[in-house]
Amino acid sequence: MEPNKTDISEWFKGLQDDICLALEQGDGQGKFHEDLWDRPEGGGGRTRVIQGQHIEKGGVNFSAVHGPLPEKIGKALGLSAGSFFATGVSIVLHPRNPLVPIIHMNVRYFEMSDGTWWFGGGIDLTPHYVVEAEARFFHQQLKQVCDQHHPTYYPHFKQWADDYFYVKHRKETRGIGGIFFDRLNEADGFTKTDRFAFVQAVGQVFAPTYLKLLNDNKHKSFTSEQEKWQLLRRGRYVEFNLVWDKGTKFGLDTDGRIESILMSLPPVVNWDYNVQVAEASEEAKTLALLKKGIKWVN
Amino acid sequence: MEPNKTDISEWFKGLQDDICLALEQGDGQGKFHEDLWDRPEGGGGRTRVIQGQHIEKGGVNFSAVHGPLPEKIGKALGLSAGSFFATGVSIVLHPRNPLVPIIHMNVRYFEMSDGTWWFGGGIDLTPHYVVEAEARFFHQQLKQVCDQHHPTYYPHFKQWADDYFYVKHRKETRGIGGIFFDRLNEADGFTKTDRFAFVQAVGQVFAPTYLKLLNDNKHKSFTSEQEKWQLLRRGRYVEFNLVWDKGTKFGLDTDGRIESILMSLPPVVNWDYNVQVAEASEEAKTLALLKKGIKWVN
Repeated sequence: MEPNKTDISEWFKGLQDDICLALEQGDGQGKFHEDLWDRPEGGGGRTRVIQGQHIEKGGVNFSAVHGPLPEKIGKALGLSAGSFFATGVSIVLHPRNPLVPIIHMNVRYFEMSDGTWWFGGGIDLTPHYVVEAEARFFHQQLKQVCDQHHPTYYPHFKQWADDYFYVKHRKETRGIGGIFFDRLNEADGFTKTDRFAFVQAVGQVFAPTYLKLLNDNKHKSFTSEQEKWQLLRRGRYVEFNLVWDKGTKFGLDTDGRIESILMSLPPVVNWDYNVQVAEASEEAKTLALLKKGIKWVN
Repeated sequence: MEPNKTDISEWFKGLQDDICLALEQGDGQGKFHEDLWDRPEGGGGRTRVIQGQHIEKGGVNFSAVHGPLPEKIGKALGLSAGSFFATGVSIVLHPRNPLVPIIHMNVRYFEMSDGTWWFGGGIDLTPHYVVEAEARFFHQQLKQVCDQHHPTYYPHFKQWADDYFYVKHRKETRGIGGIFFDRLNEADGFTKTDRFAFVQAVGQVFAPTYLKLLNDNKHKSFTSEQEKWQLLRRGRYVEFNLVWDKGTKFGLDTDGRIESILMSLPPVVNWDYNVQVAEASEEAKTLALLKKGIKWVN
């Protein structure tokens, strides 16, 4: 039997629980604060935010909303009137240590009353300093998950992430990318069961992957120059999210729950005028790796 | 004789000089750093940035650019192909003391090879804490300038600013508004000389108006709570500029000089999750005044 919307949203809820638990353990001190909220037109969510010792600010959101399809959303998605149901888990973590990367993950499911449905999501990593071995590890984790579900998934979704997480006006990628996918439906002989299994695997690879990066780096000492660089890189993260991220803009434009959407913004950010990096510095090395099309794994 | 594009851009250049001098005096310590830049397709600018003791980060930009009208710009402005010329002065100042307001000013002139021309611009004030007497003073200054040129200017341009400087997703205005105007041309019997005289008066009222607000408040002591509030309010400023400001988005979208456009972003910014203000606090009082349609002067 194929999974229905309740199966999917219940599974997402459990994923939120599991990830929060894992992250609290990784932080060792911070605890998630939960806000339950209702959507006036139907459904609601559980927004959870942590301010810990290693995770300076992090959000792990679950939502399951439904009701008549708002006109703006229908237009944007190319759908005609009807009722919709949407559920998902969305995560952004800003670590305190500049040697720990920022991470983002999202898994989501959407369906219409006419039976149309699809899954979407992605994971991408934004190191303040790109460490090539870690970038390879991260992509290897994602590739492994993808390859277990379809051989085209990793190359296709990796390129999609390169294109999506792009700070166009800076001509640089947000970080080292990852995977991004949308509208995964019954095309090409896939079943809903197949697609859901893939999305579940993406959700499950998040915690072990990030905890490895967190635990390997969270106790490392860092300089005030590295911390300054972190605050500037966070500025780029804000620029991407507020200027280019379709998900964020869509939420802001359609009366989403603002605090849940903007929990992705970093706690402290700097913008300096015309920042220049020293030649051959770690900062310059990082900038040189914020490009589309880098092949991190074979 | 009506002013031509050289008269106008030369006057704007002089305005930039005058304002920079006045602001350096107001700061008492910081000096503007100048970057001259060329636009590959024609023209260029003088970007000037100050990091002073009272003005934590401020930019006063002049530019005069020309060339074939880029397709995207033509589309956005509803113009057909041809050559364009655009010149202007653009200012954003982020003060160090939370009791000093953020200010923005812009005056600009645009013309096409077919003879179409217009002026645009505006001044708006974003106090971290709204002080009603200062809001009245600010609007009185603008009203006086407007009234000397046309009785409809102030009410019309004040409302335009309320509508323009609006952080839609927060349902609050960016600050206490001011004036905003665009496409002021030869309509309604105005001449180019009339319109230029008005824009000059707007440019000239900037320095004395802001210096009064700066000098009256820059030495006041403030608490760390007030400073925290300032950093959060700066977050709203960023949200407006990156999500809603048409000028910024347009610049980012059409390959403008990024560092000159984004000099408007504050040096240090905070985003906290779900900030709540105490009832009847100064912060709550300020939020209650970030609404459209407040009549600050008669």
